[in-house]
Amino acid sequence: MSLLAVGTLAYDSIETVAAKRADLLGGSVTYFSLAAALFAKVAVVGVVGKDFKKQDLELLRAKGIDTAGVEVQDGETFRWSGRYEADWNTRHTLATHLNVFEHFDPKVPAAQRSARFVFLANAAPEIQAKALAQVSAPIFVMADTMNLWIDIAKPALLDLLRRVDALILNDEEARMLTGERNLLRAAAKALDLGPKHIVLKKGEHGAFLIGRGAHFALPAYPVEEVVDPTGAGDSFAGGFMGYLASVGTVDAPAMRRSMLHGTAAASMCVEGFGVEQLAKCTRQDVDARCAELRSIVTV
Amino acid sequence: MSLLAVGTLAYDSIETVAAKRADLLGGSVTYFSLAAALFAKVAVVGVVGKDFKKQDLELLRAKGIDTAGVEVQDGETFRWSGRYEADWNTRHTLATHLNVFEHFDPKVPAAQRSARFVFLANAAPEIQAKALAQVSAPIFVMADTMNLWIDIAKPALLDLLRRVDALILNDEEARMLTGERNLLRAAAKALDLGPKHIVLKKGEHGAFLIGRGAHFALPAYPVEEVVDPTGAGDSFAGGFMGYLASVGTVDAPAMRRSMLHGTAAASMCVEGFGVEQLAKCTRQDVDARCAELRSIVTV
Repeated sequence: MSLLAVGTLAYDSIETVAAKRADLLGGSVTYFSLAAALFAKVAVVGVVGKDFKKQDLELLRAKGIDTAGVEVQDGETFRWSGRYEADWNTRHTLATHLNVFEHFDPKVPAAQRSARFVFLANAAPEIQAKALAQVSAPIFVMADTMNLWIDIAKPALLDLLRRVDALILNDEEARMLTGERNLLRAAAKALDLGPKHIVLKKGEHGAFLIGRGAHFALPAYPVEEVVDPTGAGDSFAGGFMGYLASVGTVDAPAMRRSMLHGTAAASMCVEGFGVEQLAKCTRQDVDARCAELRSIVTV
Repeated sequence: MSLLAVGTLAYDSIETVAAKRADLLGGSVTYFSLAAALFAKVAVVGVVGKDFKKQDLELLRAKGIDTAGVEVQDGETFRWSGRYEADWNTRHTLATHLNVFEHFDPKVPAAQRSARFVFLANAAPEIQAKALAQVSAPIFVMADTMNLWIDIAKPALLDLLRRVDALILNDEEARMLTGERNLLRAAAKALDLGPKHIVLKKGEHGAFLIGRGAHFALPAYPVEEVVDPTGAGDSFAGGFMGYLASVGTVDAPAMRRSMLHGTAAASMCVEGFGVEQLAKCTRQDVDARCAELRSIVTV
Protein backbone atom coordinates (compact mmCIF):
# COMPACT_ATOMS: atom_id res chain seq x y z
CA MET A 1 0.00 0.00 0.00
CA SER A 2 1.06 3.60 -0.55
CA LEU A 3 3.42 5.22 1.94
CA LEU A 4 4.05 8.92 2.38
CA ALA A 5 6.82 10.57 4.40
CA VAL A 6 7.06 14.25 5.30
CA GLY A 7 10.25 15.82 6.66
CA THR A 8 13.72 17.08 5.87
CA LEU A 9 16.22 16.58 3.08
CA ALA A 10 19.53 17.96 4.22
CA TYR A 11 23.27 18.20 3.95
CA ASP A 12 25.10 16.99 7.06
CA SER A 13 28.65 17.46 8.26
CA ILE A 14 29.65 14.70 10.62
CA GLU A 15 32.62 14.12 12.89
CA THR A 16 33.35 10.81 14.54
CA VAL A 17 36.45 9.76 16.47
CA ALA A 18 37.72 8.09 13.29
CA ALA A 19 36.77 10.52 10.53
CA LYS A 20 35.17 13.76 9.42
CA ARG A 21 32.88 14.21 6.42
CA ALA A 22 31.27 17.38 5.11
CA ASP A 23 28.09 18.01 3.08
CA LEU A 24 26.78 14.46 3.05
CA LEU A 25 23.29 13.86 1.79
CA GLY A 26 21.07 13.48 4.86
CA GLY A 27 17.75 14.48 6.38
CA SER A 28 14.96 12.50 7.98
CA VAL A 29 12.97 11.60 4.86
CA THR A 30 16.14 10.78 2.94
CA TYR A 31 17.07 8.05 5.42
CA PHE A 32 13.44 7.07 5.91
CA SER A 33 12.65 6.70 2.22
CA LEU A 34 15.86 4.82 1.34
CA ALA A 35 14.99 2.25 4.04
CA ALA A 36 11.25 2.14 3.24
CA ALA A 37 11.88 1.79 -0.51
CA LEU A 38 13.43 -1.63 0.16
CA PHE A 39 9.91 -2.85 0.93
CA ALA A 40 7.30 -0.52 -0.56
CA LYS A 41 6.54 2.35 -2.89
CA VAL A 42 7.28 5.54 -0.99
CA ALA A 43 6.67 9.21 -1.75
CA VAL A 44 8.36 12.10 0.04
CA VAL A 45 7.27 15.64 0.82
CA GLY A 46 9.93 18.17 1.72
CA VAL A 47 11.75 21.28 0.66
CA VAL A 48 15.29 21.88 -0.63
CA GLY A 49 17.27 24.90 -1.74
CA LYS A 50 18.70 25.66 -5.16
CA ASP A 51 21.97 24.11 -3.96
CA PHE A 52 20.43 20.64 -3.67
CA LYS A 53 22.32 18.40 -6.04
CA LYS A 54 20.53 16.87 -8.98
CA GLN A 55 22.41 13.62 -8.44
CA ASP A 56 21.02 13.37 -4.89
CA LEU A 57 17.46 13.65 -6.09
CA GLU A 58 18.32 11.12 -8.78
CA LEU A 59 19.68 8.73 -6.14
CA LEU A 60 16.25 8.70 -4.51
CA ARG A 61 14.39 8.38 -7.80
CA ALA A 62 16.59 5.49 -8.88
CA LYS A 63 15.28 3.63 -5.82
CA GLY A 64 11.73 4.19 -7.00
CA ILE A 65 11.10 6.98 -4.49
CA ASP A 66 8.51 9.50 -5.66
CA THR A 67 10.03 12.97 -5.20
CA ALA A 68 7.21 14.98 -6.81
CA GLY A 69 6.48 16.43 -3.34
CA VAL A 70 10.00 17.85 -2.95
CA GLU A 71 9.73 21.57 -3.50
CA VAL A 72 12.76 23.53 -4.66
CA GLN A 73 12.94 27.02 -3.18
CA ASP A 74 15.27 29.99 -3.48
CA GLY A 75 17.87 29.68 -0.75
CA GLU A 76 19.94 26.95 0.80
CA THR A 77 19.05 23.40 1.85
CA PHE A 78 18.75 22.52 5.57
CA ARG A 79 22.22 21.92 7.03
CA TRP A 80 23.22 20.11 10.21
CA SER A 81 26.62 19.42 11.66
CA GLY A 82 27.44 17.27 14.64
CA ARG A 83 30.12 15.34 16.44
CA TYR A 84 29.91 11.93 18.14
CA GLU A 85 31.90 10.83 21.18
CA ALA A 86 33.72 7.49 21.12
CA ASP A 87 30.80 5.72 22.87
CA TRP A 88 28.34 6.91 20.15
CA ASN A 89 25.80 7.75 22.84
CA THR A 90 26.83 11.36 23.14
CA ARG A 91 26.09 13.54 20.14
CA HIS A 92 26.99 17.22 20.05
CA THR A 93 25.11 19.36 17.58
CA LEU A 94 27.65 21.87 16.29
CA ALA A 95 25.30 23.83 14.05
CA THR A 96 21.78 23.71 12.65
CA HIS A 97 20.86 25.96 9.73
CA LEU A 98 17.17 25.54 8.90
CA ASN A 99 17.54 27.62 5.72
CA VAL A 100 14.58 26.89 3.39
CA PHE A 101 13.11 24.49 5.97
CA GLU A 102 12.43 27.42 8.32
CA HIS A 103 9.24 28.32 6.46
CA PHE A 104 8.41 24.80 5.27
CA ASP A 105 4.80 24.62 4.21
CA PRO A 106 4.21 20.98 3.28
CA LYS A 107 2.18 20.48 0.14
CA VAL A 108 1.12 16.88 -0.41
CA PRO A 109 0.69 16.31 -4.18
CA ALA A 110 -2.85 15.30 -5.17
CA ALA A 111 -1.65 11.82 -6.14
CA GLN A 112 -0.31 11.24 -2.59
CA ARG A 113 -3.31 12.42 -0.62
CA SER A 114 -4.80 8.94 -0.67
CA ALA A 115 -1.70 7.44 1.02
CA ARG A 116 -2.68 4.76 3.55
CA PHE A 117 0.57 4.83 5.56
CA VAL A 118 2.06 8.14 6.69
CA PHE A 119 5.29 9.00 8.48
CA LEU A 120 5.59 12.46 9.98
CA ALA A 121 9.31 12.88 10.54
CA ASN A 122 10.62 15.22 13.22
CA ALA A 123 9.40 18.78 12.55
CA ALA A 124 7.37 21.42 14.37
CA PRO A 125 4.08 19.72 15.32
CA GLU A 126 2.11 22.45 13.51
CA ILE A 127 3.90 21.49 10.27
CA GLN A 128 3.30 17.78 10.92
CA ALA A 129 -0.41 18.51 11.51
CA LYS A 130 -0.62 20.59 8.35
CA ALA A 131 0.76 17.70 6.30
CA LEU A 132 -1.47 15.13 7.97
CA ALA A 133 -4.57 17.25 7.28
CA GLN A 134 -3.93 16.83 3.56
CA VAL A 135 -4.14 13.03 3.68
CA SER A 136 -7.71 11.83 3.25
CA ALA A 137 -7.95 8.39 4.88
CA PRO A 138 -4.74 7.01 6.33
CA ILE A 139 -4.77 3.59 8.01
CA PHE A 140 -1.63 4.10 10.05
CA VAL A 141 0.18 7.34 10.91
CA MET A 142 3.46 7.39 12.83
CA ALA A 143 5.00 10.61 14.15
CA ASP A 144 8.52 11.35 15.34
CA THR A 145 9.41 14.36 17.47
CA MET A 146 12.28 15.79 19.51
CA ASN A 147 13.03 17.49 22.82
CA LEU A 148 12.81 20.95 21.25
CA TRP A 149 9.09 20.52 20.39
CA ILE A 150 8.28 18.90 23.72
CA ASP A 151 9.85 21.99 25.25
CA ILE A 152 8.54 24.84 23.12
CA ALA A 153 5.44 23.45 21.33
CA LYS A 154 3.88 20.98 23.75
CA PRO A 155 0.21 22.01 23.23
CA ALA A 156 0.54 21.58 19.46
CA LEU A 157 2.37 18.29 19.94
CA LEU A 158 -0.33 16.97 22.30
CA ASP A 159 -2.92 18.00 19.76
CA LEU A 160 -1.09 16.06 17.03
CA LEU A 161 -0.66 12.98 19.24
CA ARG A 162 -4.43 12.61 19.51
CA ARG A 163 -4.47 12.09 15.74
CA VAL A 164 -1.65 9.60 15.20
CA ASP A 165 -1.54 5.82 15.59
CA ALA A 166 2.07 5.54 16.69
CA LEU A 167 4.72 7.76 18.23
CA ILE A 168 8.41 6.95 17.87
CA LEU A 169 10.69 8.27 20.62
CA ASN A 170 14.05 7.71 22.22
CA ASP A 171 14.32 7.14 25.97
CA GLU A 172 15.23 10.75 26.76
CA GLU A 173 12.28 12.09 24.76
CA ALA A 174 9.89 9.61 26.40
CA ARG A 175 11.01 10.79 29.84
CA MET A 176 10.77 14.44 28.86
CA LEU A 177 7.32 14.10 27.28
CA THR A 178 5.81 12.30 30.27
CA GLY A 179 7.90 13.43 33.22
CA GLU A 180 8.35 9.75 34.11
CA ARG A 181 11.84 8.27 34.68
CA ASN A 182 10.87 4.61 34.41
CA LEU A 183 10.69 3.87 30.66
CA LEU A 184 7.78 1.45 30.90
CA ARG A 185 5.70 3.88 32.90
CA ALA A 186 6.75 6.66 30.52
CA ALA A 187 5.49 4.56 27.59
CA ALA A 188 2.20 3.86 29.43
CA LYS A 189 1.72 7.58 30.01
CA ALA A 190 2.52 8.33 26.37
CA LEU A 191 -0.25 5.89 25.35
CA ASP A 192 -2.66 8.01 27.40
CA LEU A 193 -1.87 10.93 25.07
CA GLY A 194 -3.52 9.23 22.11
CA PRO A 195 -1.25 6.89 20.12
CA LYS A 196 -2.09 3.18 20.24
CA HIS A 197 1.57 2.26 19.85
CA ILE A 198 4.78 3.69 21.29
CA VAL A 199 8.04 2.72 19.62
CA LEU A 200 10.87 3.31 22.08
CA LYS A 201 14.29 3.50 20.45
CA LYS A 202 17.19 2.60 22.74
CA GLY A 203 20.02 2.72 20.18
CA GLU A 204 22.55 -0.07 20.74
CA HIS A 205 20.18 -1.57 23.33
CA GLY A 206 17.40 -2.20 20.83
CA ALA A 207 13.81 -1.05 20.78
CA PHE A 208 10.46 -1.63 22.50
CA LEU A 209 7.01 -1.63 20.95
CA ILE A 210 4.45 -0.86 23.60
CA GLY A 211 0.68 -0.85 23.28
CA ARG A 212 -2.08 -1.20 25.82
CA GLY A 213 -1.32 -4.52 27.53
CA ALA A 214 1.15 -5.36 24.76
CA HIS A 215 4.91 -5.37 25.04
CA PHE A 216 7.48 -6.41 22.50
CA ALA A 217 11.24 -6.04 22.98
CA LEU A 218 13.95 -6.52 20.40
CA PRO A 219 17.71 -6.13 20.82
CA ALA A 220 19.71 -4.22 18.23
CA TYR A 221 21.29 -6.22 15.41
CA PRO A 222 24.89 -6.94 16.53
CA VAL A 223 26.82 -4.56 14.29
CA GLU A 224 30.54 -5.34 14.26
CA GLU A 225 31.63 -1.77 13.61
CA VAL A 226 29.55 1.38 13.83
CA VAL A 227 30.81 3.99 11.35
CA ASP A 228 28.19 6.74 11.76
CA PRO A 229 24.93 6.49 13.72
CA THR A 230 23.34 9.48 11.94
CA GLY A 231 19.97 8.51 10.49
CA ALA A 232 19.64 5.23 12.42
CA GLY A 233 16.30 6.29 13.93
CA ASP A 234 14.84 7.41 10.60
CA SER A 235 16.13 4.27 8.88
CA PHE A 236 14.46 2.25 11.64
CA ALA A 237 11.22 4.12 11.02
CA GLY A 238 11.64 3.55 7.26
CA GLY A 239 12.13 -0.20 7.63
CA PHE A 240 9.23 -0.34 10.09
CA MET A 241 6.73 1.64 7.97
CA GLY A 242 7.98 0.25 4.67
CA TYR A 243 7.46 -3.31 5.87
CA LEU A 244 4.00 -2.48 7.29
CA ALA A 245 2.96 -0.80 4.05
CA SER A 246 4.21 -3.83 2.11
CA VAL A 247 2.00 -6.22 4.07
CA GLY A 248 -0.84 -3.70 4.28
CA THR A 249 -1.92 -4.78 7.74
CA VAL A 250 -1.20 -3.52 11.25
CA ASP A 251 -2.07 -6.53 13.40
CA ALA A 252 0.21 -7.60 16.25
CA PRO A 253 2.33 -10.14 14.29
CA ALA A 254 2.86 -7.62 11.47
CA MET A 255 3.88 -4.94 13.97
CA ARG A 256 6.46 -7.27 15.53
CA ARG A 257 7.89 -8.15 12.14
CA SER A 258 8.01 -4.46 11.28
CA MET A 259 10.21 -3.93 14.37
CA LEU A 260 12.53 -6.61 13.00
CA HIS A 261 12.72 -4.92 9.59
CA GLY A 262 13.26 -1.48 11.18
CA THR A 263 16.09 -2.89 13.29
CA ALA A 264 17.73 -4.51 10.27
CA ALA A 265 17.49 -1.30 8.21
CA ALA A 266 18.99 0.76 11.05
CA SER A 267 21.90 -1.69 11.35
CA MET A 268 22.66 -1.22 7.64
CA CYS A 269 22.55 2.54 8.03
CA VAL A 270 25.11 2.79 10.85
CA GLU A 271 27.67 0.73 8.93
CA GLY A 272 28.45 3.60 6.59
CA PHE A 273 28.82 7.38 6.62
CA GLY A 274 25.57 9.17 5.85
CA VAL A 275 23.39 7.11 3.52
CA GLU A 276 26.26 5.35 1.72
CA GLN A 277 25.65 1.89 3.15
CA LEU A 278 21.87 2.17 3.28
CA ALA A 279 21.77 3.25 -0.37
CA LYS A 280 23.84 0.21 -1.34
CA CYS A 281 21.89 -2.47 0.45
CA THR A 282 19.23 -4.68 -1.07
CA ARG A 283 16.03 -6.27 0.14
CA GLN A 284 17.98 -9.55 0.25
CA ASP A 285 20.57 -8.02 2.61
CA VAL A 286 17.85 -6.81 4.98
CA ASP A 287 15.96 -10.10 4.82
CA ALA A 288 19.16 -11.96 5.70
CA ARG A 289 19.66 -9.72 8.74
CA CYS A 290 16.04 -10.19 9.77
CA ALA A 291 16.50 -13.96 9.66
CA GLU A 292 19.73 -13.71 11.63
CA LEU A 293 18.20 -11.39 14.23
CA ARG A 294 15.22 -13.70 14.57
CA SER A 295 17.57 -16.58 15.29
CA ILE A 296 19.49 -14.44 17.79
CA VAL A 297 16.35 -13.78 19.84
CA THR A 298 14.64 -17.15 19.55
CA VAL A 299 14.44 -19.00 22.87
CA MET B 1 22.15 -32.87 38.58
CA SER B 2 24.14 -31.60 41.53
CA LEU B 3 25.07 -27.92 41.65
CA LEU B 4 27.75 -26.35 43.80
CA ALA B 5 28.34 -22.64 44.44
CA VAL B 6 31.39 -21.10 46.11
CA GLY B 7 31.43 -17.48 47.29
CA THR B 8 30.30 -15.02 49.94
CA LEU B 9 27.56 -14.92 52.53
CA ALA B 10 27.33 -11.36 53.80
CA TYR B 11 25.45 -8.61 55.55
CA ASP B 12 24.75 -5.61 53.34
CA SER B 13 23.72 -2.06 54.14
CA ILE B 14 21.97 -0.49 51.18
CA GLU B 15 20.83 3.02 50.37
CA THR B 16 18.54 3.84 47.49
CA VAL B 17 16.85 7.13 46.67
CA ALA B 18 13.71 5.82 48.37
CA ALA B 19 15.03 3.97 51.42
CA LYS B 20 17.92 2.79 53.55
CA ARG B 21 18.34 -0.66 55.08
CA ALA B 22 21.10 -1.99 57.28
CA ASP B 23 22.46 -5.49 57.89
CA LEU B 24 20.43 -7.31 55.28
CA LEU B 25 21.31 -10.89 54.47
CA GLY B 26 23.34 -10.79 51.25
CA GLY B 27 26.41 -12.20 49.54
CA SER B 28 26.94 -13.82 46.16
CA VAL B 29 26.11 -17.43 47.04
CA THR B 30 23.11 -16.36 49.11
CA TYR B 31 21.47 -14.74 46.07
CA PHE B 32 22.78 -17.45 43.76
CA SER B 33 21.52 -20.36 45.83
CA LEU B 34 18.09 -18.86 46.52
CA ALA B 35 17.59 -18.46 42.76
CA ALA B 36 19.14 -21.82 41.84
CA ALA B 37 17.14 -23.68 44.50
CA LEU B 38 13.97 -22.86 42.57
CA PHE B 39 15.15 -25.37 39.96
CA ALA B 40 17.73 -27.73 41.40
CA LYS B 41 19.43 -29.10 44.48
CA VAL B 42 22.23 -26.68 45.35
CA ALA B 43 25.08 -26.78 47.88
CA VAL B 44 27.08 -23.75 48.98
CA VAL B 45 30.65 -23.33 50.16
CA GLY B 46 31.54 -20.18 52.07
CA VAL B 47 32.58 -18.74 55.38
CA VAL B 48 30.71 -16.68 57.97
CA GLY B 49 31.56 -15.15 61.34
CA LYS B 50 30.10 -15.96 64.73
CA ASP B 51 27.66 -13.08 64.19
CA PHE B 52 25.92 -14.86 61.30
CA LYS B 53 22.32 -15.33 62.35
CA LYS B 54 20.98 -18.84 62.80
CA GLN B 55 17.72 -17.77 61.16
CA ASP B 56 19.61 -16.76 58.01
CA LEU B 57 21.22 -20.16 57.69
CA GLU B 58 17.80 -21.67 58.37
CA LEU B 59 16.26 -19.57 55.60
CA LEU B 60 18.64 -21.21 53.12
CA ARG B 61 18.13 -24.70 54.55
CA ALA B 62 14.35 -24.32 54.40
CA LYS B 63 14.76 -23.89 50.64
CA GLY B 64 16.60 -27.20 50.46
CA ILE B 65 20.01 -25.53 50.12
CA ASP B 66 22.85 -27.65 51.49
CA THR B 67 24.91 -25.45 53.84
CA ALA B 68 27.30 -28.13 55.10
CA GLY B 69 30.09 -26.27 53.26
CA VAL B 70 29.50 -23.02 55.17
CA GLU B 71 32.29 -22.72 57.69
CA VAL B 72 31.77 -20.68 60.86
CA GLN B 73 34.90 -18.86 61.99
CA ASP B 74 35.85 -16.58 64.86
CA GLY B 75 35.29 -13.02 63.74
CA GLU B 76 32.69 -11.12 61.79
CA THR B 77 30.85 -11.95 58.58
CA PHE B 78 31.73 -10.13 55.32
CA ARG B 79 30.00 -6.75 55.24
CA TRP B 80 29.30 -4.46 52.30
CA SER B 81 27.55 -1.13 52.16
CA GLY B 82 26.60 0.82 49.08
CA ARG B 83 24.41 3.51 47.66
CA TYR B 84 22.54 3.62 44.33
CA GLU B 85 21.81 6.73 42.29
CA ALA B 86 18.27 7.35 41.00
CA ASP B 87 19.10 5.79 37.61
CA TRP B 88 20.27 2.51 39.31
CA ASN B 89 23.25 2.39 36.95
CA THR B 90 25.60 4.16 39.31
CA ARG B 91 26.52 2.26 42.45
CA HIS B 92 28.84 3.73 45.06
CA THR B 93 30.52 1.28 47.38
CA LEU B 94 30.64 3.01 50.77
CA ALA B 95 32.52 0.27 52.64
CA THR B 96 33.74 -3.29 52.21
CA HIS B 97 34.82 -5.26 55.26
CA LEU B 98 36.11 -8.65 54.20
CA ASN B 99 36.32 -9.83 57.81
CA VAL B 100 36.43 -13.68 57.91
CA PHE B 101 36.34 -13.78 54.09
CA GLU B 102 39.82 -12.24 53.96
CA HIS B 103 41.45 -15.60 54.60
CA PHE B 104 38.74 -17.73 52.99
CA ASP B 105 40.08 -21.18 52.28
CA PRO B 106 37.27 -23.01 50.49
CA LYS B 107 36.73 -26.57 51.62
CA VAL B 108 34.34 -28.51 49.46
CA PRO B 109 32.72 -31.24 51.59
CA ALA B 110 33.39 -34.78 50.34
CA ALA B 111 29.74 -35.20 49.38
CA GLN B 112 29.93 -32.19 47.03
CA ARG B 113 33.14 -33.04 45.23
CA SER B 114 31.22 -34.95 42.59
CA ALA B 115 29.12 -31.90 41.70
CA ARG B 116 28.52 -31.72 37.93
CA PHE B 117 27.65 -28.00 37.78
CA VAL B 118 29.83 -25.46 39.54
CA PHE B 119 29.48 -21.70 40.03
CA LEU B 120 32.54 -19.81 41.18
CA ALA B 121 31.14 -16.52 42.46
CA ASN B 122 33.26 -13.38 42.48
CA ALA B 123 36.38 -13.92 44.63
CA ALA B 124 40.15 -13.79 44.18
CA PRO B 125 40.89 -16.11 41.24
CA GLU B 126 43.32 -18.11 43.41
CA ILE B 127 40.43 -18.90 45.77
CA GLN B 128 38.16 -19.79 42.86
CA ALA B 129 40.87 -22.11 41.48
CA LYS B 130 41.37 -23.72 44.88
CA ALA B 131 37.67 -24.54 45.11
CA LEU B 132 37.51 -25.83 41.54
CA ALA B 133 40.48 -28.13 42.11
CA GLN B 134 38.42 -30.01 44.71
CA VAL B 135 35.66 -30.93 42.26
CA SER B 136 36.45 -34.18 40.49
CA ALA B 137 34.53 -34.17 37.19
CA PRO B 138 32.36 -31.12 36.56
CA ILE B 139 30.39 -30.90 33.32
CA PHE B 140 29.93 -27.15 33.36
CA VAL B 141 31.79 -24.53 35.39
CA MET B 142 30.85 -20.85 35.32
CA ALA B 143 33.00 -18.14 36.92
CA ASP B 144 32.18 -14.58 37.86
CA THR B 145 34.82 -11.93 38.51
CA MET B 146 35.19 -8.18 39.03
CA ASN B 147 37.34 -5.22 38.01
CA LEU B 148 39.53 -5.58 41.10
CA TRP B 149 40.80 -9.03 40.06
CA ILE B 150 41.23 -8.01 36.43
CA ASP B 151 43.37 -5.19 37.81
CA ILE B 152 45.44 -6.86 40.53
CA ALA B 153 45.32 -10.60 39.77
CA LYS B 154 45.14 -10.90 35.99
CA PRO B 155 47.63 -13.78 35.57
CA ALA B 156 45.72 -15.91 38.11
CA LEU B 157 42.43 -14.94 36.47
CA LEU B 158 43.71 -15.88 33.00
CA ASP B 159 44.90 -19.18 34.42
CA LEU B 160 41.44 -19.85 35.85
CA LEU B 161 39.69 -18.87 32.61
CA ARG B 162 41.47 -21.68 30.77
CA ARG B 163 39.68 -24.10 33.08
CA VAL B 164 36.09 -22.83 33.05
CA ASP B 165 33.28 -23.34 30.54
CA ALA B 166 31.61 -19.98 30.96
CA LEU B 167 32.49 -16.53 32.22
CA ILE B 168 29.82 -14.10 33.38
CA LEU B 169 30.68 -10.40 33.12
CA ASN B 170 29.11 -6.99 32.92
CA ASP B 171 29.95 -4.65 30.04
CA GLU B 172 32.54 -2.67 32.00
CA GLU B 173 34.34 -5.85 33.11
CA ALA B 174 34.30 -7.23 29.55
CA ARG B 175 35.92 -4.04 28.28
CA MET B 176 38.48 -3.99 31.06
CA LEU B 177 39.41 -7.67 30.65
CA THR B 178 39.94 -7.42 26.90
CA GLY B 179 40.83 -3.76 26.30
CA GLU B 180 38.13 -3.70 23.64
CA ARG B 181 35.37 -1.03 23.67
CA ASN B 182 32.96 -2.75 21.28
CA LEU B 183 31.09 -5.32 23.40
CA LEU B 184 30.84 -7.94 20.67
CA ARG B 185 34.55 -7.78 19.94
CA ALA B 186 35.22 -7.80 23.69
CA ALA B 187 33.18 -11.00 24.01
CA ALA B 188 35.02 -12.56 21.05
CA LYS B 189 38.36 -11.74 22.70
CA ALA B 190 37.15 -13.17 26.01
CA LEU B 191 36.34 -16.44 24.20
CA ASP B 192 39.98 -16.57 23.14
CA LEU B 193 40.92 -16.72 26.82
CA GLY B 194 39.38 -20.16 27.26
CA PRO B 195 35.67 -20.16 28.10
CA LYS B 196 33.30 -21.56 25.47
CA HIS B 197 30.55 -19.19 26.57
CA ILE B 198 30.50 -15.55 27.63
CA VAL B 199 27.44 -14.28 29.46
CA LEU B 200 27.34 -10.49 29.17
CA LYS B 201 25.08 -8.82 31.71
CA LYS B 202 23.76 -5.42 30.67
CA GLY B 203 21.39 -4.77 33.60
CA GLU B 204 18.15 -3.12 32.48
CA HIS B 205 19.22 -3.71 28.87
CA GLY B 206 19.22 -7.48 29.21
CA ALA B 207 21.96 -10.00 28.56
CA PHE B 208 23.92 -11.64 25.75
CA LEU B 209 25.14 -15.23 25.52
CA ILE B 210 28.06 -15.42 23.15
CA GLY B 211 29.90 -18.48 21.96
CA ARG B 212 32.03 -19.15 18.90
CA GLY B 213 29.72 -18.26 16.01
CA ALA B 214 26.76 -18.26 18.38
CA HIS B 215 24.92 -15.21 19.59
CA PHE B 216 21.81 -15.01 21.73
CA ALA B 217 20.33 -11.75 23.03
CA LEU B 218 17.57 -11.36 25.59
CA PRO B 219 16.09 -8.12 26.93
CA ALA B 220 15.52 -7.74 30.67
CA TYR B 221 12.12 -8.67 32.04
CA PRO B 222 10.12 -5.39 32.18
CA VAL B 223 10.08 -4.75 35.93
CA GLU B 224 7.53 -2.07 36.87
CA GLU B 225 9.45 -0.84 39.89
CA VAL B 226 13.03 -1.60 40.87
CA VAL B 227 13.43 -1.56 44.66
CA ASP B 228 17.06 -2.70 45.04
CA PRO B 229 19.31 -4.07 42.27
CA THR B 230 21.75 -5.70 44.72
CA GLY B 231 22.21 -9.35 43.89
CA ALA B 232 20.61 -9.18 40.44
CA GLY B 233 23.72 -10.57 38.75
CA ASP B 234 24.09 -13.47 41.20
CA SER B 235 20.35 -14.21 41.01
CA PHE B 236 20.72 -14.28 37.22
CA ALA B 237 23.61 -16.73 37.56
CA GLY B 238 21.54 -18.78 40.01
CA GLY B 239 18.55 -19.04 37.69
CA PHE B 240 20.88 -19.79 34.78
CA MET B 241 22.90 -22.53 36.51
CA GLY B 242 19.93 -23.91 38.47
CA TYR B 243 17.95 -24.37 35.28
CA LEU B 244 20.91 -25.95 33.47
CA ALA B 245 21.52 -28.36 36.37
CA SER B 246 17.81 -29.24 36.39
CA VAL B 247 17.86 -30.29 32.72
CA GLY B 248 21.35 -31.78 33.02
CA THR B 249 22.41 -30.75 29.54
CA VAL B 250 24.32 -27.80 28.09
CA ASP B 251 23.26 -27.84 24.44
CA ALA B 252 22.35 -24.60 22.66
CA PRO B 253 18.56 -24.72 23.30
CA ALA B 254 19.14 -25.47 27.00
CA MET B 255 21.62 -22.58 27.24
CA ARG B 256 19.08 -20.18 25.72
CA ARG B 257 16.38 -21.33 28.11
CA SER B 258 18.81 -20.94 31.00
CA MET B 259 19.23 -17.27 29.97
CA LEU B 260 15.45 -16.92 30.20
CA HIS B 261 15.38 -18.45 33.68
CA GLY B 262 18.30 -16.31 34.85
CA THR B 263 16.56 -13.18 33.58
CA ALA B 264 13.32 -14.11 35.34
CA ALA B 265 15.13 -14.82 38.63
CA ALA B 266 17.00 -11.51 38.45
CA SER B 267 13.73 -9.65 37.85
CA MET B 268 12.29 -11.18 41.04
CA CYS B 269 15.39 -10.20 42.98
CA VAL B 270 15.30 -6.49 42.12
CA GLU B 271 11.67 -6.15 43.19
CA GLY B 272 12.56 -6.32 46.88
CA PHE B 273 15.28 -5.18 49.27
CA GLY B 274 18.07 -7.72 49.66
CA VAL B 275 16.74 -11.25 49.24
CA GLU B 276 13.21 -10.54 50.52
CA GLN B 277 11.42 -10.92 47.19
CA LEU B 278 13.65 -13.67 45.84
CA ALA B 279 13.15 -15.71 49.02
CA LYS B 280 9.37 -15.40 48.68
CA CYS B 281 9.02 -16.38 45.04
CA THR B 282 8.15 -19.83 43.78
CA ARG B 283 9.06 -21.91 40.75
CA GLN B 284 5.56 -21.09 39.43
CA ASP B 285 6.28 -17.34 39.69
CA VAL B 286 9.50 -17.73 37.72
CA ASP B 287 7.91 -20.01 35.15
CA ALA B 288 5.15 -17.43 34.60
CA ARG B 289 7.75 -14.71 34.00
CA CYS B 290 9.67 -16.97 31.63
CA ALA B 291 6.49 -17.53 29.62
CA GLU B 292 5.75 -13.80 29.61
CA LEU B 293 9.30 -12.90 28.59
CA ARG B 294 9.22 -15.49 25.85
CA SER B 295 6.04 -13.90 24.48
CA ILE B 296 7.64 -10.45 24.73
CA VAL B 297 10.54 -11.48 22.51
CA THR B 298 8.73 -13.71 20.03
CA VAL B 299 8.68 -12.28 16.51
